[in-house]
Amino acid sequence: MFAHSPIRKRLLNSRLYLVTDQELSGNRETVKTVEQALRGGVDMVQLREYSLNDSQLFEMALKVRKLTSKYKALFIVNNRPDIALASGADGVHLGQDDLPVPAARKILGKSKLIGVSTHDISQAKRAIKDWADYIGVGPVYPTQTKKNVVPPVTLDYVRQVNKARLPIPFFAIGGIKLHNVEEVLKAGARRIAVVTGIVGAHKVAKVAGEYKKILRKYPWV
Amino acid sequence: MFAHSPIRKRLLNSRLYLVTDQELSGNRETVKTVEQALRGGVDMVQLREYSLNDSQLFEMALKVRKLTSKYKALFIVNNRPDIALASGADGVHLGQDDLPVPAARKILGKSKLIGVSTHDISQAKRAIKDWADYIGVGPVYPTQTKKNVVPPVTLDYVRQVNKARLPIPFFAIGGIKLHNVEEVLKAGARRIAVVTGIVGAHKVAKVAGEYKKILRKYPWV
Repeated sequence: MFAHSPIRKRLLNSRLYLVTDQELSGNRETVKTVEQALRGGVDMVQLREYSLNDSQLFEMALKVRKLTSKYKALFIVNNRPDIALASGADGVHLGQDDLPVPAARKILGKSKLIGVSTHDISQAKRAIKDWADYIGVGPVYPTQTKKNVVPPVTLDYVRQVNKARLPIPFFAIGGIKLHNVEEVLKAGARRIAVVTGIVGAHKVAKVAGEYKKILRKYPWV
Repeated sequence: MFAHSPIRKRLLNSRLYLVTDQELSGNRETVKTVEQALRGGVDMVQLREYSLNDSQLFEMALKVRKLTSKYKALFIVNNRPDIALASGADGVHLGQDDLPVPAARKILGKSKLIGVSTHDISQAKRAIKDWADYIGVGPVYPTQTKKNVVPPVTLDYVRQVNKARLPIPFFAIGGIKLHNVEEVLKAGARRIAVVTGIVGAHKVAKVAGEYKKILRKYPWV
């Protein structure tokens, strides 16, 4: 984590992180889903779409940038520092098989956020040494997300990360639904990322609001 | 085309452009193929690999950057301005469904090269208006490249582009082999890009040298 900056203060205040997936959103388009989720109170949006070409992804990123700015939410692009820069996003999210964090940092500079998916504590520590701004911790539960081939890390990893008192925020992710979110928070998470639980909901704004309500019962400071 | 610069002078002098494809290279690894092709005299290399994840692609880009520097050849990354920047490549090549040229230019700055695949004269003109540095003209003949779903543009488009006297260099591409390269040059091309014709060859350096020899019979100035 770099010195305090407005964007990093907003990151600290972010508790509910929406990750998009058109294919899990039924007939609703991702941009529509994002708008409804923002109305419901998500603090941060990651554009993660596997089925679009770069031209389509860029067009969508521009739209999501506008919406997130309107709702004062952070906007992160999955995998692609170039599309993050071109669309004016706040940062990028990297998996373990994506560009290494130092390479992405070189492109993005210090003013952008870099998040990293981690599946064990050594990956978490690596991310911190690489100056990542936040990490994902998961998948906590089995998920429907196709590209996710990592077996669930279970609540054990959440507890482990919580105990480690890492110097950057972590978001628990992976199969977190309204019915199990409280056990994740009880395991020590204070920030969560949600895909299907929100994008697959019938009433997106309402469901997002319900996650927020539960999160408020577990303040992070 | 921007004001003269060393990199753009080298582009003008580049006549034989190798585009990589591990899957068409038999058992030979792309890095090996690139090295042999450079020995044979290719002036420019584009890293275009569909089967690698970003981490692997980045590692390979670093290796190809070293080799191309050693042989004083230009190095272009397909599709990805971020990986081009992170690996110190000379530029990026964009297809019609990739990031728009102005978005890529914003990320790359004026000192990097941007090439664009074009399949008709209106795309060629669009690329020039967007300040692309060179264009691809093709596919001239049917190709084995899997991702290429565009029907052949035939020698007619090569002749059309040649007649149009565009203010930037163009590379004819698509199914160009030793047995048909001369008809492409006779149609007005002075620069060619080759995939299978080189990466699929038994003796890569020798075949690259043969392309060069034929190209020398058709000077560009």
